[in-house]
Amino acid sequence: MQKVVTFGEIMLRFSTEHHLRFSQAKFFEATYGGSEFNVAVSLVNYGVPTVFVTRIPNNDIGHCALKEMRKFNVESTKIQFGGDRLGVYYLEQGVSSRGSNVVYDRANSSMATIQKGSINWEEVFQGATWFHWSGVTPAISDSAAQVCLEAVIAAHELGVTVSSDLNFRSKLWQYGKFPKDVMPELLQYTNVMLGDLETAFFMLGKEKIKPKYQDKKALAPLYQTLFELCPNLTIAATTLRNSISASYQQIGGILYDGNQIFTSDIKDVRPVVDRVGSGDAFMGGLIYGLLEYNKDLQRTLDFAVAACCLKHTISGDYNLATLQEIEKMLQGDISGKVSR
Amino acid sequence: MQKVVTFGEIMLRFSTEHHLRFSQAKFFEATYGGSEFNVAVSLVNYGVPTVFVTRIPNNDIGHCALKEMRKFNVESTKIQFGGDRLGVYYLEQGVSSRGSNVVYDRANSSMATIQKGSINWEEVFQGATWFHWSGVTPAISDSAAQVCLEAVIAAHELGVTVSSDLNFRSKLWQYGKFPKDVMPELLQYTNVMLGDLETAFFMLGKEKIKPKYQDKKALAPLYQTLFELCPNLTIAATTLRNSISASYQQIGGILYDGNQIFTSDIKDVRPVVDRVGSGDAFMGGLIYGLLEYNKDLQRTLDFAVAACCLKHTISGDYNLATLQEIEKMLQGDISGKVSR
Amino acid sequence: MQKVVTFGEIMLRFSTEHHLRFSQAKFFEATYGGSEFNVAVSLVNYGVPTVFVTRIPNNDIGHCALKEMRKFNVESTKIQFGGDRLGVYYLEQGVSSRGSNVVYDRANSSMATIQKGSINWEEVFQGATWFHWSGVTPAISDSAAQVCLEAVIAAHELGVTVSSDLNFRSKLWQYGKFPKDVMPELLQYTNVMLGDLETAFFMLGKEKIKPKYQDKKALAPLYQTLFELCPNLTIAATTLRNSISASYQQIGGILYDGNQIFTSDIKDVRPVVDRVGSGDAFMGGLIYGLLEYNKDLQRTLDFAVAACCLKHTISGDYNLATLQEIEKMLQGDISGKVSR
Amino acid sequence: MQKVVTFGEIMLRFSTEHHLRFSQAKFFEATYGGSEFNVAVSLVNYGVPTVFVTRIPNNDIGHCALKEMRKFNVESTKIQFGGDRLGVYYLEQGVSSRGSNVVYDRANSSMATIQKGSINWEEVFQGATWFHWSGVTPAISDSAAQVCLEAVIAAHELGVTVSSDLNFRSKLWQYGKFPKDVMPELLQYTNVMLGDLETAFFMLGKEKIKPKYQDKKALAPLYQTLFELCPNLTIAATTLRNSISASYQQIGGILYDGNQIFTSDIKDVRPVVDRVGSGDAFMGGLIYGLLEYNKDLQRTLDFAVAACCLKHTISGDYNLATLQEIEKMLQGDISGKVSR
Amino acid sequence: MQKVVTFGEIMLRFSTEHHLRFSQAKFFEATYGGSEFNVAVSLVNYGVPTVFVTRIPNNDIGHCALKEMRKFNVESTKIQFGGDRLGVYYLEQGVSSRGSNVVYDRANSSMATIQKGSINWEEVFQGATWFHWSGVTPAISDSAAQVCLEAVIAAHELGVTVSSDLNFRSKLWQYGKFPKDVMPELLQYTNVMLGDLETAFFMLGKEKIKPKYQDKKALAPLYQTLFELCPNLTIAATTLRNSISASYQQIGGILYDGNQIFTSDIKDVRPVVDRVGSGDAFMGGLIYGLLEYNKDLQRTLDFAVAACCLKHTISGDYNLATLQEIEKMLQGDISGKVSR
Amino acid sequence: MQKVVTFGEIMLRFSTEHHLRFSQAKFFEATYGGSEFNVAVSLVNYGVPTVFVTRIPNNDIGHCALKEMRKFNVESTKIQFGGDRLGVYYLEQGVSSRGSNVVYDRANSSMATIQKGSINWEEVFQGATWFHWSGVTPAISDSAAQVCLEAVIAAHELGVTVSSDLNFRSKLWQYGKFPKDVMPELLQYTNVMLGDLETAFFMLGKEKIKPKYQDKKALAPLYQTLFELCPNLTIAATTLRNSISASYQQIGGILYDGNQIFTSDIKDVRPVVDRVGSGDAFMGGLIYGLLEYNKDLQRTLDFAVAACCLKHTISGDYNLATLQEIEKMLQGDISGKVSR
Repeated sequence: MQKVVTFGEIMLRFSTEHHLRFSQAKFFEATYGGSEFNVAVSLVNYGVPTVFVTRIPNNDIGHCALKEMRKFNVESTKIQFGGDRLGVYYLEQGVSSRGSNVVYDRANSSMATIQKGSINWEEVFQGATWFHWSGVTPAISDSAAQVCLEAVIAAHELGVTVSSDLNFRSKLWQYGKFPKDVMPELLQYTNVMLGDLETAFFMLGKEKIKPKYQDKKALAPLYQTLFELCPNLTIAATTLRNSISASYQQIGGILYDGNQIFTSDIKDVRPVVDRVGSGDAFMGGLIYGLLEYNKDLQRTLDFAVAACCLKHTISGDYNLATLQEIEKMLQGDISGKVSR
Repeated sequence: MQKVVTFGEIMLRFSTEHHLRFSQAKFFEATYGGSEFNVAVSLVNYGVPTVFVTRIPNNDIGHCALKEMRKFNVESTKIQFGGDRLGVYYLEQGVSSRGSNVVYDRANSSMATIQKGSINWEEVFQGATWFHWSGVTPAISDSAAQVCLEAVIAAHELGVTVSSDLNFRSKLWQYGKFPKDVMPELLQYTNVMLGDLETAFFMLGKEKIKPKYQDKKALAPLYQTLFELCPNLTIAATTLRNSISASYQQIGGILYDGNQIFTSDIKDVRPVVDRVGSGDAFMGGLIYGLLEYNKDLQRTLDFAVAACCLKHTISGDYNLATLQEIEKMLQGDISGKVSR
Repeated sequence: MQKVVTFGEIMLRFSTEHHLRFSQAKFFEATYGGSEFNVAVSLVNYGVPTVFVTRIPNNDIGHCALKEMRKFNVESTKIQFGGDRLGVYYLEQGVSSRGSNVVYDRANSSMATIQKGSINWEEVFQGATWFHWSGVTPAISDSAAQVCLEAVIAAHELGVTVSSDLNFRSKLWQYGKFPKDVMPELLQYTNVMLGDLETAFFMLGKEKIKPKYQDKKALAPLYQTLFELCPNLTIAATTLRNSISASYQQIGGILYDGNQIFTSDIKDVRPVVDRVGSGDAFMGGLIYGLLEYNKDLQRTLDFAVAACCLKHTISGDYNLATLQEIEKMLQGDISGKVSR
Repeated sequence: MQKVVTFGEIMLRFSTEHHLRFSQAKFFEATYGGSEFNVAVSLVNYGVPTVFVTRIPNNDIGHCALKEMRKFNVESTKIQFGGDRLGVYYLEQGVSSRGSNVVYDRANSSMATIQKGSINWEEVFQGATWFHWSGVTPAISDSAAQVCLEAVIAAHELGVTVSSDLNFRSKLWQYGKFPKDVMPELLQYTNVMLGDLETAFFMLGKEKIKPKYQDKKALAPLYQTLFELCPNLTIAATTLRNSISASYQQIGGILYDGNQIFTSDIKDVRPVVDRVGSGDAFMGGLIYGLLEYNKDLQRTLDFAVAACCLKHTISGDYNLATLQEIEKMLQGDISGKVSR
Repeated sequence: MQKVVTFGEIMLRFSTEHHLRFSQAKFFEATYGGSEFNVAVSLVNYGVPTVFVTRIPNNDIGHCALKEMRKFNVESTKIQFGGDRLGVYYLEQGVSSRGSNVVYDRANSSMATIQKGSINWEEVFQGATWFHWSGVTPAISDSAAQVCLEAVIAAHELGVTVSSDLNFRSKLWQYGKFPKDVMPELLQYTNVMLGDLETAFFMLGKEKIKPKYQDKKALAPLYQTLFELCPNLTIAATTLRNSISASYQQIGGILYDGNQIFTSDIKDVRPVVDRVGSGDAFMGGLIYGLLEYNKDLQRTLDFAVAACCLKHTISGDYNLATLQEIEKMLQGDISGKVSR
Repeated sequence: MQKVVTFGEIMLRFSTEHHLRFSQAKFFEATYGGSEFNVAVSLVNYGVPTVFVTRIPNNDIGHCALKEMRKFNVESTKIQFGGDRLGVYYLEQGVSSRGSNVVYDRANSSMATIQKGSINWEEVFQGATWFHWSGVTPAISDSAAQVCLEAVIAAHELGVTVSSDLNFRSKLWQYGKFPKDVMPELLQYTNVMLGDLETAFFMLGKEKIKPKYQDKKALAPLYQTLFELCPNLTIAATTLRNSISASYQQIGGILYDGNQIFTSDIKDVRPVVDRVGSGDAFMGGLIYGLLEYNKDLQRTLDFAVAACCLKHTISGDYNLATLQEIEKMLQGDISGKVSR
């Protein structure tokens, strides 16, 4: 089994129960999450050994995050301890026509203050064949962006496959640089990209586009342009999400391998238990498919879509659906029968 | 900003969690509510200074209700302390084909035993431009009905706009008088009325009607009759509610200004988190629109409908949706996307 | 009012809240259930005096189960105390495309180790007119199957009507015998059977069939064969369930009385609160209708279907819907309006 | 085994968790209790069949109380249904130097509005040898006091032993009569009395006394006077309580049989989990001892004291300590060792 | 009634329930607190109108803090909105020999980034006769210390009495200045000081002392020195705390008025529910006594001690004991009897 | 750092909250524990790498136990998967004079059905210097006893130090053998023993003794006899526990090294949060001291006693006190001050 490395921030998430507004809650549920950690949990659940690299404070709250990594069997020996605080985010789960509400409190976190040169990437990548990062990390701080660049360059040089989830967050990128200043260089080294084409073009500093994802013919040249802009790209995928309400989502996907566009069925998710991390579930499924399904890209895409759908039924940031559950769904069984 | 006064009862609400039946619950969630207080909270949330007038016992439970008013910034300095108990109601939230279940325990409450002449309405209305009451208050007790009449007369004489939500509750009106004995006089002074036409005609002692709300032509003369029965009426509005199940509601509205019938789109609410107080959310939206939207009655009606829809997603009696959330919905965004 | 006896196992059920996965739960909700006990609770709720016969350990956990029987007014004086443990099952409630997940831990329970001859059935059936058992009991252990046989023979000899829910559970039947070794003899004595035809034929050791329940003409001969295989059969009924997802079920029913096939409307259940025990709710409704509705078989079937639907809205194994609520649904009211 | 009847009010108790003040609580724990029901639960737990007579509303909340009686195996077939509401009391548990805080909301309850002549006491007492009531019932309302008098007279005439717990509650007695107007007649028929001598003299309309419970010589004549005032009295007992703080109580007892004063050791209770109902636990122990210990009055008193102590460790109004636990304590084992 | 102003930081407190370690908690209780806000709540509870001045972020979390201020009737109209985050602290409640554990996450909070000159103190102090601050504020940041100095100078010039709680927190003072650099100037303007003598001498840059609080003769010259160092001082008080364990505290106090040393009894607090904020409860009691008890300094000190004791029984940062409860304790009643 | 191996059963523990009786609990807290696993967690918390060997079912419940091991960083790679069920125990926490109540449901667990020869102990002990087992394992089943014997023999032959906690549980030993049939052989190989002398003599089949632990002179020959019976013994230790109530314990210890008797101070623990696992905390402290304190046996004993005391303040089976907290206690600080 191949080994994967992911790099990013893990935060403490405080969410209200039962869709309560913040002002109604006396108790907050404390869970943990962060895009790249969520991907790591998915992969470990599928049986792929995965190392998570991050920076956390050496205090009781940091150690809680560490225990969470261990609980879910994510390799944590490459964690850097330092800095003052674990980032926090507050979450009000939306329902029906009311959207979810996130308040970030992650500035000056241990991860945001990580220092250039402080991670020995060559050592981290020993035995690894895949490296995953997302657009959240370079959005946190200048130094986090720099360490991210060190990582993708090292991965590239060591022949480790690099995957990137564009993950644009408009509330981040507050440190004076913008995606177009940072992402083009980072994406040079990417082999597998997840994100919609609008975001990809925006981050690469290109003019705004409005792709129609139902029209394969119109899509192909856009993907082709993307492949030209990112010389190492071999796979580009996009989650298709039709948000009918906070409680009703329709999920599908598109994948392009340089030659052919693959599309999946669109699946209903209703009701939604927790939408946060569903993109990471797609990403985790995509990496798993590419590692395990021996170039069966249709199956890979379908797996990623099914993983994304099932994530919506699971509370918390990460996808705890099993391989068996995803495969049952791939075989068309969404009846929700009781197994007994 | 204009100041509003509302008058009515605030009760302690004990509800089971997770749709449990009463016999299954070991814990009851304690919240507070009452039609006119709910309207007050809506208005304060929209930035309208609002005074709530009621009567509560001077004991620890009464003081909890007072703290709730303060928390939500409803002006409570005109509260009367006295009587023996805060009214209670028990609530089992319905789901799917099982309806919600309310058990009232509000007889002999402090509000029900309020005495005629005990409120100095002239002082209460100082600086106010609007007074709101509902058909719950005259349904509680004879003395409450009398105080209500004092209030509407005082408001009328002071040039304060009077709004009324008909709010018929068949389980109340137990003190020997019936709506037709009391409501006609009270509604003489009303400028703005919320309620369906059947209820309005019933309360005014008229013969039973079965209006078709889709047929504007047939509606106009009915509204016209209503305006004749209530000489001060300038606006009559009705919430349209299609109850497909306890978990699935369709909501719209109708508004008549003496000349023209305005109608809104019908919106899906699914799933429903808490239906109680959704009529009060409509009422709060209606008052806000009439105060702020400068006679744009279509916008006023649409605002009331959106507020009503969003209320269904919020636990507890009152609408905690923000102006921004309602306006986002008015602009057609019900996608429930995560803001981050 | 006639008296009913049911016989089977009652288990302690540990379920996670809010659809949490087992690994996410810090607290488990402890409730009780078992197919035949669930039927007993339904009947008592409808006003039918019902005796539950089982075997529980004489320890604190067994006494909790006893208190539960008493709370719901199920007659428990015929309970046998003995054995080492109350059976347990763990439940993760499914949602949307994720099915519910049951882990049984019921081997070696007090009920599984019940001994042949240890129940005085003649005494148990004094004053009773109906006996109900299900296919779970003979699936637990050889001795449980033997006691079940003693019961149906005694009931038959005493002129007590016997009803059977086939209730096939593939994870049981681990003791060396299979349904076809045990069920044919047991079903000889059955007067009323609930189950789908595939299961009935399978348990009776017949070749596999695939009936089309929409096609009454094709169904009749299958039911006719079933009546030939079970000489005492007078009523056979089947729950029709269309599982669209774990959160969305469509429920109907079919009933055959030897002459005529009755069918019900198909009803939507959405969202599902708790699907476990919904078959037992159907069974309870069927028995009630046969006891009370004076051979109005259409009403009996409709009642069973409505009871089954309402059960899905109630947390826990048993149906706590009232007669009034079921009758309201029979009259077509599924609007879920708040009664106040 | 002899059968006992108790008569009084059962209320719904809403208490905050973890010593929270009312204004801090979002959830209230719902339990049930009332002095005479608490005694009934104690007796049933010891194996004594006990009938509880009360009046409860025929609504969902009343039926919850009924399910509670059944759960704890208290015979409820003599309950009268009627009236409007189940009485409520709110409880903040004290701790350390902060005392517990009770807010009653029991006026106009079903029990308070019970009607004279509405209970057929002759039928109730069939097969019974003991009747228990407390001073709470005549304190609720005039009609409750009258029904109580009917009961004690009927018991007396039928040769049923009558026990009374004086249970003075200063916040009750609001209906215009005072203990001295009502209690002397009621206590004429009492055979066994629990209460301190101050209260007894006060309720019997005698001058105020300040007995020293350590001084047996001084006590004897006071008890002797009491016996003269209550001609049927054969046993008078008093709980000795030294309240060091809300969390630390010292408990003992005194018993007089007309000849001799028995005293118990003083036992430490620390910490206190729930003090409410500890007097009722003493009363239940006293009745049990008098029924079972064959005139061993020292053992009877010690049993009552131990039951009272153990009650303080149990949440809720009633004593759920087992006979085995009380007997272990009587044998001197208070080490709290884990049994495994 | 005189009006008080307090100035400081309010934080969101996340505490585990039931003494759980952070790593064991799935839910954190969210409450609010901060030394000077806690004092404000105490005073409002005693009936003293109190204004709290602070800086909070204009986001949903900041607005939760605002709702808390309103709930407890603390005047919040002088709050400044701005900055990025509400400070957070995590709390594990200690028990027995295990101490409580606090993890601060308050750096870069809105209050820490308050700007010099941004508060119009003259306007704030209109109608006020008392100003309270504590040593926490100058410990947060340089700018907070500067604003604090502006406040005390303004208060001094306007003839507003100034009280200071020294409140040394070793984990703060991280911004490059130390108490001796900042506090001597701030304390020039103080009229009433709470703190132990060691801390006072340390903060004033004097040599270390080890006072014996039992020895009044030795204490007097130390207090005298303190009065010389702080020319406006008229009252200096010290809480005496004997920490036997996290669950058992003994509390007393000392007060010096320039002439005489007053001492209180030492009171047991056992068990402790929540120790955090007990010093603020003392401070609140001290201010109340000085405002209301007309120079009865013994009563003032006893009131402060009783308030401090009762605070230990209340969950959360602030003292919710009532005047009646404190006065009952002053009269010697700590029996914790149930009031009913 | 040396590596330790422990071997035993891990169970799922269902405990009621807040000292509730089983019949009062609607939710059970699910934690995990078992004597030898508890020791492993202690050691890992102190920084000692520790391997836990057990057998768990390969189902969702078994995997929850596995996640718990990982969370607390106990090495789980030597776990054997197999069998049908994870053992369960139910716990009611005692308080004051009411003791804790344990109901075991662990028969036929995966661990109880472990097979002789199924563990490759030579491989398990690679790199290990210490092996720990307890008297619970041979009490579960014959095969578990046999595997235990294989383990101690292998350890002995490989020069791995063997420690044993006698841990007599009277409710176990149900499989036909008794301690004296099994323990003498097992204890031949023990180097370090924890247990009281009565239990040691009883398990070794010797006549009953009643040692006086205060009398060192009388103790020495008893320990000497023990050393003769167990030829490899070098250290024997005993926890001294004075159970004043379930909420108040006094803890000390004795240690004998073949020459000298060491004793510790007796420490108060009050209140007790959770007593279960406190013996395992002593054992973990003993092993840690022997590994780390370089033959300072007094410090070793004091460390074990302090660890045992602190465990009583922590909910759940295992000791989550940190090295720093234990050392602070060793230095005499039990004041429970808040660190901030």
